[in-house]
Amino acid sequence: MSLLVIGSIALDTVRTPFGVVKDALGGAAVYASCAASFFTDVAVVGVAGKDFPSQHTEFLSSRNIDLSGLEITDGQTFRWSGRYDFDLNLAHTLHTQLNVFADFRPELGQEQRQAAYVFLANMDPEIQLHILDQLKKPELVACDTMNFWIDGKPEALRQVISRSDILFINDAEARQLCNTPSLIKAARELYNMGLRAVVIKKGEHGSMMLCDEGFFAAPSYPLEEVRDPTGAGDSFAGGFMGYLASECDCSTDSLRCAVICGSVVASYDVEEFSLERMKRLDGNDIAGRFNEFKHLSTFESPGALLSVSLE
Amino acid sequence: MSLLVIGSIALDTVRTPFGVVKDALGGAAVYASCAASFFTDVAVVGVAGKDFPSQHTEFLSSRNIDLSGLEITDGQTFRWSGRYDFDLNLAHTLHTQLNVFADFRPELGQEQRQAAYVFLANMDPEIQLHILDQLKKPELVACDTMNFWIDGKPEALRQVISRSDILFINDAEARQLCNTPSLIKAARELYNMGLRAVVIKKGEHGSMMLCDEGFFAAPSYPLEEVRDPTGAGDSFAGGFMGYLASECDCSTDSLRCAVICGSVVASYDVEEFSLERMKRLDGNDIAGRFNEFKHLSTFESPGALLSVSLE
Repeated sequence: MSLLVIGSIALDTVRTPFGVVKDALGGAAVYASCAASFFTDVAVVGVAGKDFPSQHTEFLSSRNIDLSGLEITDGQTFRWSGRYDFDLNLAHTLHTQLNVFADFRPELGQEQRQAAYVFLANMDPEIQLHILDQLKKPELVACDTMNFWIDGKPEALRQVISRSDILFINDAEARQLCNTPSLIKAARELYNMGLRAVVIKKGEHGSMMLCDEGFFAAPSYPLEEVRDPTGAGDSFAGGFMGYLASECDCSTDSLRCAVICGSVVASYDVEEFSLERMKRLDGNDIAGRFNEFKHLSTFESPGALLSVSLE
Repeated sequence: MSLLVIGSIALDTVRTPFGVVKDALGGAAVYASCAASFFTDVAVVGVAGKDFPSQHTEFLSSRNIDLSGLEITDGQTFRWSGRYDFDLNLAHTLHTQLNVFADFRPELGQEQRQAAYVFLANMDPEIQLHILDQLKKPELVACDTMNFWIDGKPEALRQVISRSDILFINDAEARQLCNTPSLIKAARELYNMGLRAVVIKKGEHGSMMLCDEGFFAAPSYPLEEVRDPTGAGDSFAGGFMGYLASECDCSTDSLRCAVICGSVVASYDVEEFSLERMKRLDGNDIAGRFNEFKHLSTFESPGALLSVSLE
């Protein structure tokens, strides 16, 4: 099974305490599709300007990503510029130049409309609705969003969520959208909007998922140095959706595995700037860190103690 | 095996969005010894004033806690008054009246000096050193601290840590003590001070332990309503140490189990004010939630996928 990813293609200028990159490959759809490509066939729908370097499309093609939905149009590629200080959990946006992405209103082709697994990366929820209207009978649609849309278009966003199966959202956004400091309450409220699962990303604190059988908590990978957190959330979503699409299965077991697959790819993403680490990633790296995640959170039950001595 | 707990006995006045209690049973040694009493025999060393209600000593005795080291002296019991607002992760201290605790400088009895498992709850690190000087040959000494001592007596505190086996510390304090925003770096730095394990408590984000075989991450229990977080850290440490003392074993497996036992008791503590929930707690409650913690973080490895399809 393959995954359709729709969202931004960008050139990012990012400064962190570890260095700076200028006009580096970025964008939610790029991170997500690259992350998913380690698990399944991916097709991307997005738009870039004539200034988009051919080396980037070549890299995405080398990951076996179907770029027939990538439109290269007159004008400049979407540019984002941000800074991370001492606390790498917090992005400070310096500039956002939408450029060609401002007019992004994709008309899907016949094959894309039939897609079974779809990831709507963070973008204007009205565009997300426009895409949802075109999908024929998707197995599973996941969406992402950001504080800008929670503030600006809450009603459209709620429609997107109620028409999706899975919502990826970070902790601050979940609290903001549900107007509560309790992530547990926020997760329940979001889940009750009709989702199959809500996944709350908590940066260094890992992630938490609520689905029909309850909560699942995943740690983050204990990295001593996070060089550039850009794209971590999109890589997470891409790894998650790529795994589910590869399994064609949305059971609880698969959803939990998907959280870990997302965590694994995101943990690699943040080790270097832009997609540099992902360019060198392979299946062994992913399998190895998957097992490390397992070890990280495993504990044995002291059966005897808990049934006898505690009384 | 039994556990010796040394620290404050208090009467707490606490206001949260869920209510208020005045002069309720509290204090680090009280929370920790009560939590540990579900796992092992506990002896407490502390001091209270003549105003300390007999119902509290009766309750502690009913938990089978050895109170021969509890001194009731002329004067008022230590009082702490605090407030939690919308964000229950953040305590606002309103008043601290040390009262009889200001002169606390315990001289241990012969039996207490032989204790194998010892928990030095948060207190002046010079007093913690004074206690360490009296211990004969402890198997395992754990200590806790707070920002006040990190600021005020960093050198004495570092001595305490280097003479202990296990340090309990919260995330903000770990960052403060090691002057880094990275909890992973902080954990490594603290561990390298000679500890057998460092346990970083992260409130709603669970906890993380570093010991010789690496990191362990535990989630927090997904509680929709935290009514009073007071004593959560002390209950965690008490459950942790009580379990280890009951096992007489400090293997990695036991340490990991201890983190979960601590998490379980802490998750009950915060459900109600003061020690109200712990007063009704039993071994079945603990065993039940232990299993829920297991379910919360368990996932299966998709063996085939990770060894084949990912290539």
